[in-house]
Amino acid sequence: MLIQDLTSTPPAASGDQPAPGQSRYGWLASGLRARITQGEWIPGTALPPEALLAKEHGVALGTLRQALALLVAEGLLERRHGRGTFVRAGLGGASMLRFFRFRNAGELQATPQSSILARSVALASVNEADALGLPAGASVLTLERLRSLDGRPCLLEHITLPLPAFAALAASSTEDWDDLLYPMYQRVCGVTVHRAQDQLSFGLLSAEQARRLQLEAGHPCVQVQRTAFDLAGRCIELRTTLGDAFAFQYTAQVR
Amino acid sequence: MLIQDLTSTPPAASGDQPAPGQSRYGWLASGLRARITQGEWIPGTALPPEALLAKEHGVALGTLRQALALLVAEGLLERRHGRGTFVRAGLGGASMLRFFRFRNAGELQATPQSSILARSVALASVNEADALGLPAGASVLTLERLRSLDGRPCLLEHITLPLPAFAALAASSTEDWDDLLYPMYQRVCGVTVHRAQDQLSFGLLSAEQARRLQLEAGHPCVQVQRTAFDLAGRCIELRTTLGDAFAFQYTAQVR
Repeated sequence: MLIQDLTSTPPAASGDQPAPGQSRYGWLASGLRARITQGEWIPGTALPPEALLAKEHGVALGTLRQALALLVAEGLLERRHGRGTFVRAGLGGASMLRFFRFRNAGELQATPQSSILARSVALASVNEADALGLPAGASVLTLERLRSLDGRPCLLEHITLPLPAFAALAASSTEDWDDLLYPMYQRVCGVTVHRAQDQLSFGLLSAEQARRLQLEAGHPCVQVQRTAFDLAGRCIELRTTLGDAFAFQYTAQVR
Repeated sequence: MLIQDLTSTPPAASGDQPAPGQSRYGWLASGLRARITQGEWIPGTALPPEALLAKEHGVALGTLRQALALLVAEGLLERRHGRGTFVRAGLGGASMLRFFRFRNAGELQATPQSSILARSVALASVNEADALGLPAGASVLTLERLRSLDGRPCLLEHITLPLPAFAALAASSTEDWDDLLYPMYQRVCGVTVHRAQDQLSFGLLSAEQARRLQLEAGHPCVQVQRTAFDLAGRCIELRTTLGDAFAFQYTAQVR
């Protein structure tokens, strides 16, 4: 497992030649990064052969390999042994479940069933517009979502998505939606969730929240405030997830 | 920030020559790892010059550099620009505070004052002996510790340390102890805490715990169960830390 802080990655800026002081492979990496974030190679697909790429960009094979290594370290690309270099597929699984243990030890943590309780188009709050990079007064799509395991509610979510990027989700029947949203964001809206930041805190459920989760009003909960980003580093989802604090479990490493 | 899972690091086993299938730099890294974990170069100090090390081990400078890069990636060594390669100093700061916010935004999170409420030598439980790699029935040193900010109790800790490694702490006056234990472990017992695993969960304070923390019995708390390891990967501390759940705050990245 390799977790790396990407906030220090400089924005891609790739001209015909390396800028003064820029290494040739750093310049090449910027060019390749732009081709990826502009969607020329979509997440999950393989890059063209190295020899071809090197020729296209007019660089030596060694320089190309250094540039690819940089993009692998950034998490934009991944190598698959014997199969080549791929654009990373983005977040797909039920990553919110890494904070909770709703089943007994040994039992598999399945993907929760998803139910959209409400969907509406609303005006972004100042904070939402700021986080999502939208102008003041812009419209957003909001979702209330309940996730259940074996028919028992476990996570209650409020999700805010920018428009028009997610306009396709404002129209389609929510009953046909998948249990996992991120693969659906990619398939329906062409938006890949590449990384997310989750801020955890503790709180007490309101009466309304508790009713949704079949708990008592004032029951302790853990709140996860997620900010999710696409390949180009744009914030494309704000999400607040609430779950029973007694199901909270998380392991962190420090060194 | 680079966090890496070290559990896959194979134990060092370094002979006179690389084992069949082992790279020359991998073999060299094992040899250097052994010299570090055996204390030849203590944490925080610089390694000898690269040319000298290469000569000592009878390898080319390129091979030595590959081996050093491997140990940097493992987190055993760190490069300091223009100053050389150093043995990493281990955990020093008040890392438990990364899970809590006891002050208002903008205020500096100072190092809490530490007070040892109780110290005793006890028989290790089966789980403790197992985790610490001790024989059944071995003795351990246990500490009850209260940490305070501005005179207000904030964290209550139960700590279990293996004997005889920590025997020096069984005798010294706890009033003279430092506010941070890890630098003291290193100075007094020669034990470096290199990495730790923290497992978070939620609970309610017992009457006794609540009294220590000046909260009500049954008040919600976050519990951190820490397992700490030395340079050689040996478990050298078990710690349970309790803090007010309303002060809990933690940010995790996912990609």
